[in-house]
Amino acid sequence: MMERGQLARLAARRLAVAETGQKNAALFALSDILIEDAKSLLAANARDLSSGRERGLDAALMDRLELTPQRIEAMVSGVREIAELPDPVGEVFDMKTRPSGIQVGRMRVPLGVVGIIYESRPNVTADAAALCLKSGNACILRGGSEALNSNQAIARCIDRALRSVGLPTDAVQVIDITDREVVGDLLSMPQYVDVVIPRGGKGLVAFVSDNARVPVIKHLDGICHVYIDASADVEKALAVAVNAKTQRLGTCNTMETLLVDRTLAAAILPELERIYIEHGIELRGCEQTRRIIGSARPATAQDWDTEYLGPILSIRVVEGLDEAIEHIDRHSSKHTDAIVTENLSHARRFVREVDSSSVMVNASTRFADGYEYGLGAEIGISTDKFHARGPVGLDGLTSVKWIVFGDGHVR
Amino acid sequence: MMERGQLARLAARRLAVAETGQKNAALFALSDILIEDAKSLLAANARDLSSGRERGLDAALMDRLELTPQRIEAMVSGVREIAELPDPVGEVFDMKTRPSGIQVGRMRVPLGVVGIIYESRPNVTADAAALCLKSGNACILRGGSEALNSNQAIARCIDRALRSVGLPTDAVQVIDITDREVVGDLLSMPQYVDVVIPRGGKGLVAFVSDNARVPVIKHLDGICHVYIDASADVEKALAVAVNAKTQRLGTCNTMETLLVDRTLAAAILPELERIYIEHGIELRGCEQTRRIIGSARPATAQDWDTEYLGPILSIRVVEGLDEAIEHIDRHSSKHTDAIVTENLSHARRFVREVDSSSVMVNASTRFADGYEYGLGAEIGISTDKFHARGPVGLDGLTSVKWIVFGDGHVR
Repeated sequence: MMERGQLARLAARRLAVAETGQKNAALFALSDILIEDAKSLLAANARDLSSGRERGLDAALMDRLELTPQRIEAMVSGVREIAELPDPVGEVFDMKTRPSGIQVGRMRVPLGVVGIIYESRPNVTADAAALCLKSGNACILRGGSEALNSNQAIARCIDRALRSVGLPTDAVQVIDITDREVVGDLLSMPQYVDVVIPRGGKGLVAFVSDNARVPVIKHLDGICHVYIDASADVEKALAVAVNAKTQRLGTCNTMETLLVDRTLAAAILPELERIYIEHGIELRGCEQTRRIIGSARPATAQDWDTEYLGPILSIRVVEGLDEAIEHIDRHSSKHTDAIVTENLSHARRFVREVDSSSVMVNASTRFADGYEYGLGAEIGISTDKFHARGPVGLDGLTSVKWIVFGDGHVR
Repeated sequence: MMERGQLARLAARRLAVAETGQKNAALFALSDILIEDAKSLLAANARDLSSGRERGLDAALMDRLELTPQRIEAMVSGVREIAELPDPVGEVFDMKTRPSGIQVGRMRVPLGVVGIIYESRPNVTADAAALCLKSGNACILRGGSEALNSNQAIARCIDRALRSVGLPTDAVQVIDITDREVVGDLLSMPQYVDVVIPRGGKGLVAFVSDNARVPVIKHLDGICHVYIDASADVEKALAVAVNAKTQRLGTCNTMETLLVDRTLAAAILPELERIYIEHGIELRGCEQTRRIIGSARPATAQDWDTEYLGPILSIRVVEGLDEAIEHIDRHSSKHTDAIVTENLSHARRFVREVDSSSVMVNASTRFADGYEYGLGAEIGISTDKFHARGPVGLDGLTSVKWIVFGDGHVR
């Protein structure tokens, strides 16, 4: 792995100064090659699927592992979209002339070498490689053992694409060694790896986070809240509370806990109960909630700290904005939290005081997403406050340096 | 320390939403109290100095430890300057309306709790506390044992200032326990400490960096280069090369290695030799340098990787821009590197390809500084690429969150 790291570092230097046109050409070449090679990708994937069946992988994992012609098409258009995004590298901003006469500004530059550790989904291989390439970073990709054949097939496409435009093939290294030691190595080479991004289940993310000696961009949980304020518009409250839970159940920006102001609870909860039940959502509630929603099971202390990622919702009736913010402060995973209100002062306080990567007013938590925010593709969502926060796009894979121009200026 | 962390976390929540006026009032109160209490500060400092003498501290350390009326005045005006800087917290930027109809933007927020580990200089106590307070962060300050009395005296001033404006005194905690365990504790409470900033010698910074389980803002070395290109203007080259080395010897942005293009070496090195010798600088050179500068001692391999922080300069003659960039890439500490040239293409390449926190054209490396860049005070200079890079001012002590406004919008 040390050697891989060294090679990545060398490739990173070349990528950092590669022209946008050349990087884009590599990405368009990759999308063409993925289409040409679709059959061999599907064949490689079939081998992974069959050994997955033998190893008795569960249905959800098998689904994530599977490539279909549609999924390859989605992968291809993802790569093309990244090619069409503006190149963040080389952007100069905040240029000012200082009293000393020097001109000072900042220039956006790649981070260097990005390590990505992921599980099952083979499309991450193409997706992550494309994002790193576009942002001028070399990358070392370590996928799950269950997707080894699929990942290596995609790696061969990437290799050909890089070669075809004259970029170093070490710029994207898809590791073919699947033992866990490789992960440990990736996490402990700060001289060769500038940041590691784990993409996968909580076990993986926690392991990476606990063991990394390099910076990590990650999020562990998505325990998102919607708070329906006393001054909420009932129509908007229904729309947001229903959409945030039911539009998709398994995503990190799905609402897991609904907070309702006491003064509105009796007016709004029965209608919400009806709609949630229609969507097959199991409701769990605090005592006050259960006085209004008879069908709700009692919520235990643990419910407030659980990311269900499924058809369960916990509901709590609160005494106004302060209690709502306090609840969120204690239980939110700092991913995304929303208020529904027509009261400007409450909206302002919520936005200011809730310390989450996305804070929303009268909008569904489901909007917390790189595409919805206009970043283009995202490499992940960060719930940390350091470096990148919220959806992480190309900019999150860059750093900035100071640039200074003088005319022989001295202090 | 866990309890201190908890208290800091609680105070951080209150500070995060404190109004600018209240924070500024605390800073102005602090500056007044420091003046009022100057005598007791000097008395506390005298106790530190006398036990320092007993313990046989060296002259440089004793100098850093000493408070004088002038140094207290400088501390006071530093605090006032920070009060007068714009408040970064709450700034909203990049607000856009997305095709979905939601408005998306970003808001600057404090990081939370900042741990600062420093040595000897007691003025850091006031300085760091003021920067953290202004940026809405609680802080835990752990100074050196040699400055304990001075630091506690300043801490009492800070405490009174916070109290006088109704801010929580736990927002600034100056630790009075001096054993090294405290440092270990600070580095391993990610739940209570959001970032640690070590300020001191290389030993301290390396220890913090190796042992931290929280993010660190740091720089280890300042091995800065000036490269005199073949197309340099000789007057500018002399001005920059002399200033970068001689204006101050012991700072991290002082040049340690001078690179000179072969075609200019014979024309410029004799004059540089004369000036450097006038300034008492010892010269060490590569073979080609020594053919021109007879007085230069041979530079060893180690010289190219040494931060002298003193009256020594290593000089190397290079074969053009490529070799200069290659040398910098190998030996620079990625702090600050400069080129002197009239050739636009060379300037563009140097700026693009040199991967340091500050890259300069025709300006002295000594400009790499928060005040010179217009940040106001700085809490340190980062040579890392993650989060903050180069001089770190108030902005480097903040994070951003996404804010979303809708009108009942759903996906």
